[in-house]
Amino acid sequence: MASSTQVSADVRPTSQPAAEQLPADVLNKHCPSRTILRHLTDRWTPLIVAVLADGEPVRFKDLKSTIQGISPKVLTETLRSMERDGLLTRHITASVPPRVDYQLTDLGLTTVEPLAAVRTWAETHLDEVLANRERFDAAQTV
Amino acid sequence: MASSTQVSADVRPTSQPAAEQLPADVLNKHCPSRTILRHLTDRWTPLIVAVLADGEPVRFKDLKSTIQGISPKVLTETLRSMERDGLLTRHITASVPPRVDYQLTDLGLTTVEPLAAVRTWAETHLDEVLANRERFDAAQTV
Repeated sequence: MASSTQVSADVRPTSQPAAEQLPADVLNKHCPSRTILRHLTDRWTPLIVAVLADGEPVRFKDLKSTIQGISPKVLTETLRSMERDGLLTRHITASVPPRVDYQLTDLGLTTVEPLAAVRTWAETHLDEVLANRERFDAAQTV
Repeated sequence: MASSTQVSADVRPTSQPAAEQLPADVLNKHCPSRTILRHLTDRWTPLIVAVLADGEPVRFKDLKSTIQGISPKVLTETLRSMERDGLLTRHITASVPPRVDYQLTDLGLTTVEPLAAVRTWAETHLDEVLANRERFDAAQTV
C-alpha cells in the first residue's frame, strides 16, 4: 500500500489515498488545484457554463451565437479543455451535416452555482465599478 | 434629466439612472460587465482576495510571499487594477523604507464569498479533475 511513501504536492499521483496527500492549496504554486482554478476562471468557461447551466444539451452553433464575440477556434479549444477536466460531454449525431451537442456532466453542474455567483457580482456591481474607474482615472490626470 | 435619451449598453454613461439602462449581461459582448468579470477572474485576483479576505491590511511583501509564484511587477499591476475598480485601498506609511499596505474596501469584501466558492471548488475537486484528465489523455493516445 506504500503507506510510508512521502508525497509532495507537485508530484503526487492521483491514485494516492487522500490521507497521505497534502491539503489542496491554490496559494501553493506547486499545487495542481491552481491549474483547475485557472480553467474555471478562464475567459470563456464561466460564460459557457452559464449557457449550459440548465443541464440540457446545447449545439455548438447555439453556444457560439449566444456567447457573443467568441471565435469558433477558441470555443472549440475551451470546450475540449472542459471535456478533458470532466465538466462536460460531447455528443455527435451522425446527420448531414453532423450535429454536435455539449452537455454539463454531474461534476460540471456543481460549478454552476459558484460561477453564477461571480457572474452575478460582475453584473450587479457594474455601475459602482465603472464609477470607481472614472474617479480613479480622474485622480491620475489631475 | 435627459429622460427621453436612448442609451445602448456599450456607450451608456454611468450617471444614467438605472431605469434607463439595458440590464447588464456578460453574454453581450458590448456590456462592460464582461470586463468586470474578466478582472474578477483574472489569474491572481482570486488569490489576492483570499489573502485579504479577513478585511485586515496586508503588506505588499507579505502578499508577495503568500501568493507563491507571482512576480512583483504583476502583483503591482493587479493591485492597481483592483484599486481602480474600487476593490481595495492602498495605504503608504512614511517610514524608512516606506511601508505599503493593501486592504479590501466594503465593495471588495463582497467578492470574498463568491471567489472563495470558486477557489474551494478547485481545491475540493482536485483529485476528480486530475483523474478525468488522465482518463481523457489515455483515450486520446489509444
